[in-house]
Amino acid sequence: MGDTLERETNRLISSDKVEGTAVYNPQNEKLGTITSIMIDKKSGKSQYGVLEFGGIFGLGADHYPVPWDMLTYDTDKGGYVVNLTKEQVTGAPRYARDDTPEYTDDYGRTVYGYYGLSYPML
Amino acid sequence: MGDTLERETNRLISSDKVEGTAVYNPQNEKLGTITSIMIDKKSGKSQYGVLEFGGIFGLGADHYPVPWDMLTYDTDKGGYVVNLTKEQVTGAPRYARDDTPEYTDDYGRTVYGYYGLSYPML
Repeated sequence: MGDTLERETNRLISSDKVEGTAVYNPQNEKLGTITSIMIDKKSGKSQYGVLEFGGIFGLGADHYPVPWDMLTYDTDKGGYVVNLTKEQVTGAPRYARDDTPEYTDDYGRTVYGYYGLSYPML
Repeated sequence: MGDTLERETNRLISSDKVEGTAVYNPQNEKLGTITSIMIDKKSGKSQYGVLEFGGIFGLGADHYPVPWDMLTYDTDKGGYVVNLTKEQVTGAPRYARDDTPEYTDDYGRTVYGYYGLSYPML
């Protein structure tokens, strides 16, 4: 009953709540925060959470598109959990904050490939 | 070719670009702006664009959840187009900016019902 209610009332989340939410790995290291969600215009499906990671106090931090389905919200932590080490994130496809690439299918395949996932044809 | 390229490179949009984007009706009246996107946590599907409408210079404006599929991006206008008159929006389910309701299935049915749509069971 409590669980049903929980599920019912919290099924949706606002994009502006996701932005700024912390991301942890299972080792409880904070990897960074989600800066935005990349959404497929046609289907409305969230395809990536863009992780801001590295740098100091946000300076020099890069943006890492993480396939949305890799992110799990953890109510206890109050943030997302992703099964990646810091080293794995460090080597992942990234770009400077002011240098967002075009999210072509080629780019998507590069990102999904890095994470060992097959690229979804939406 | 140009069309394919266009489709390929612009298939995704960033949530922080959607926020603040204008919404027009087919009569070219500006109805307001999208303040946020309500996203289904489990599926990642965008379910509503939340339209800020009414008031003066944002003061007293209310928030109107509009089913995402009703919103079509118009590159010429640089904003979304929704097939609604101002009167239809005025009468639609809404809430004060600081009084976001719980987006239960009941609430969803009320919203979708107002717009003559059947509520999607995600």
